Amino acid sequence: MNPFELLKTSASSKARLGRLTTAHGEISTPIFMPVGTAASVKGLSPRDLKEIDAKIILANTYHLYLRPGTPLIANAGGIHRFMAWDRPVLTDSGGFQVWSLKELRKIRENGVEFRSHIDGSKHFFSPQSVMQAQREIGADIIMAFDECTPYPSTVQEAKHSLKFTKRWTQEAMDYLREHPPLHGYPQYFFGIAQGGMHRDLRKEAIEQLIDLNPDAYALGGLSVGEPTDIMYEIADYSTDFLPKDRARYVMGVGTPWNLLELILKGVDMFDCVMPTRNARNGMLFTSQGVLHYKAARYAQMIEEAIDPHCDCYTCRHFSKAYLRHLFNAKEILALSLSSIHNLHFYLRLMEQAREKIENDSFESWAHEQIQVLQQKAP
Amino acid sequence: MNPFELLKTSASSKARLGRLTTAHGEISTPIFMPVGTAASVKGLSPRDLKEIDAKIILANTYHLYLRPGTPLIANAGGIHRFMAWDRPVLTDSGGFQVWSLKELRKIRENGVEFRSHIDGSKHFFSPQSVMQAQREIGADIIMAFDECTPYPSTVQEAKHSLKFTKRWTQEAMDYLREHPPLHGYPQYFFGIAQGGMHRDLRKEAIEQLIDLNPDAYALGGLSVGEPTDIMYEIADYSTDFLPKDRARYVMGVGTPWNLLELILKGVDMFDCVMPTRNARNGMLFTSQGVLHYKAARYAQMIEEAIDPHCDCYTCRHFSKAYLRHLFNAKEILALSLSSIHNLHFYLRLMEQAREKIENDSFESWAHEQIQVLQQKAP
Repeated sequence: MNPFELLKTSASSKARLGRLTTAHGEISTPIFMPVGTAASVKGLSPRDLKEIDAKIILANTYHLYLRPGTPLIANAGGIHRFMAWDRPVLTDSGGFQVWSLKELRKIRENGVEFRSHIDGSKHFFSPQSVMQAQREIGADIIMAFDECTPYPSTVQEAKHSLKFTKRWTQEAMDYLREHPPLHGYPQYFFGIAQGGMHRDLRKEAIEQLIDLNPDAYALGGLSVGEPTDIMYEIADYSTDFLPKDRARYVMGVGTPWNLLELILKGVDMFDCVMPTRNARNGMLFTSQGVLHYKAARYAQMIEEAIDPHCDCYTCRHFSKAYLRHLFNAKEILALSLSSIHNLHFYLRLMEQAREKIENDSFESWAHEQIQVLQQKAP
Repeated sequence: MNPFELLKTSASSKARLGRLTTAHGEISTPIFMPVGTAASVKGLSPRDLKEIDAKIILANTYHLYLRPGTPLIANAGGIHRFMAWDRPVLTDSGGFQVWSLKELRKIRENGVEFRSHIDGSKHFFSPQSVMQAQREIGADIIMAFDECTPYPSTVQEAKHSLKFTKRWTQEAMDYLREHPPLHGYPQYFFGIAQGGMHRDLRKEAIEQLIDLNPDAYALGGLSVGEPTDIMYEIADYSTDFLPKDRARYVMGVGTPWNLLELILKGVDMFDCVMPTRNARNGMLFTSQGVLHYKAARYAQMIEEAIDPHCDCYTCRHFSKAYLRHLFNAKEILALSLSSIHNLHFYLRLMEQAREKIENDSFESWAHEQIQVLQQKAP
């Protein structure tokens, strides 16, 4: 089943407008998905997420498998009920997380043996077990269990990832066919194309995936240390081979300007911990550029909001001086207010992008924003 | 000026109904004031505070003096504008905080020399400087600068506190007469009676205060390590000497059952870090008793709210199992949701107390609640 409808492709770039339809709601693309790794978007309650009008959030199978355990979430009726979030959810498969464990994992033909980062306990993820876990969690969109290609990688290493990812994707899809959803609504399955920074292998990975015919396509193994230009180039190259009528998701990217660049290259969906993680470290994205609100020059700014053009709860009510004070005083509220702002900023940027694509004015706007957003904010 | 109106005294106990009127709103008493030490109630935004219908919050002069500095708050137009809270605020004077610094402070005739707990820098608080700081902060109710009596204390030590507190209160009131409020609305001045656990000295302290005629009266130096029964007894004894037409505030107390006991003894106002601090440590107050939500027996409780009789945001939406998961996963949301619940519980308890006093049914209800609330919740 294809949950995606392509509504428009820009005449001047590969930018697209689309719509994903799930049992928990419709999602206009391009879209950014706030990350709620452990069934909680750090610093925000579900009502905060509704206020910034998040349409879909992401959770992580690896983390939920370890804690609180996916059977518990199944018993609770799925992740939506468990976390009191009635809009769409996507779960990443945990492939990237177990791969990131490095010394704590061993990749085998039939899956990955790993030790928990929490307590060192031994576990094994196979394509089947990960699909079972994602059935239990019950997200609207579930991801293939892939083997991520490191950067840099030799052709040999990248081919290895491809081989495993292809086999595991096939096995995952077989499992899903035999094991229908547990919670009474469909779960769409996204395949993940690897291939490192090798063009021909990216093409091969996509062609293999197309043969398997997943519901939509993700590009994995990007934003893993490569120069940004290479990331853009690989994404640009890859989208030429992806079916136009399916959603395209670049995983784990990135800054606001990264998102605009990738929209220009035909990508529809994004997720990243950056807006919430950076917020907790005092780095905020604004319409005037990047702002480190701990800076002493903000100490006396009792009137100015973080972003004068932002209408989020934080910017409507609080000054730079107050935010800085909260941060220095280690108040929890600093983390919430800054996370609310950053996520609101990302979501409004996507909303503007959709409007601009609709109005055939995306490209010039995007190129200007890409410059402005990287500046240092006043 | 007396901001307090006594509306009713119970026929069967010393419990009272009253009303405080300030420029930022009316407050029905008995009331509990959530503590926002550094101009933020830990874990709650101003809109969270409004949702639980907090009528007044407390902030601390010592902390605000050190960080962000009271002149900054004055420049911002006072604490209400600084923290985006348009309801009443009370500031404690910092007397208790500098006294608590122990080795970091020296008490002199004209004030207290101390070192900052943040960076070790040297500072001096006099009654005048503390009143100036409280003028700058601009709370609706400001507290005397007192010298707290330790527990246990000799008569000699307690007399020393009394002498200093009397002189400093006089000096504070002189300062306030000569230095009107800075932000265009009145600030009510509460005197603080010390006296340790010595009845005659408590009486003497109150009589001295009555001579000075502050706007209302606080009992300080309680809940400093003494047995609870002694705290109740001293409060009970003291309220007999306090003017009936003035508000009575017992500082820094306590558990929900402490509050009910003290209402029975004629106390109108309370503050304590307990509901928020304990929430952050996983201890919740409920209508069925005290609940430590980290307990393993809650792990599978996917349907049950923390308190089945509570209508706070947390209990309306989330299960014990989810809260426990958030806590184990060290999610910020655990801290917010549990703080919201505990404060809501305190405020609803005060609301019920007012209704029961109004309906002449307070005493039997309070005695029952005092038992129930101390139990271990199921």
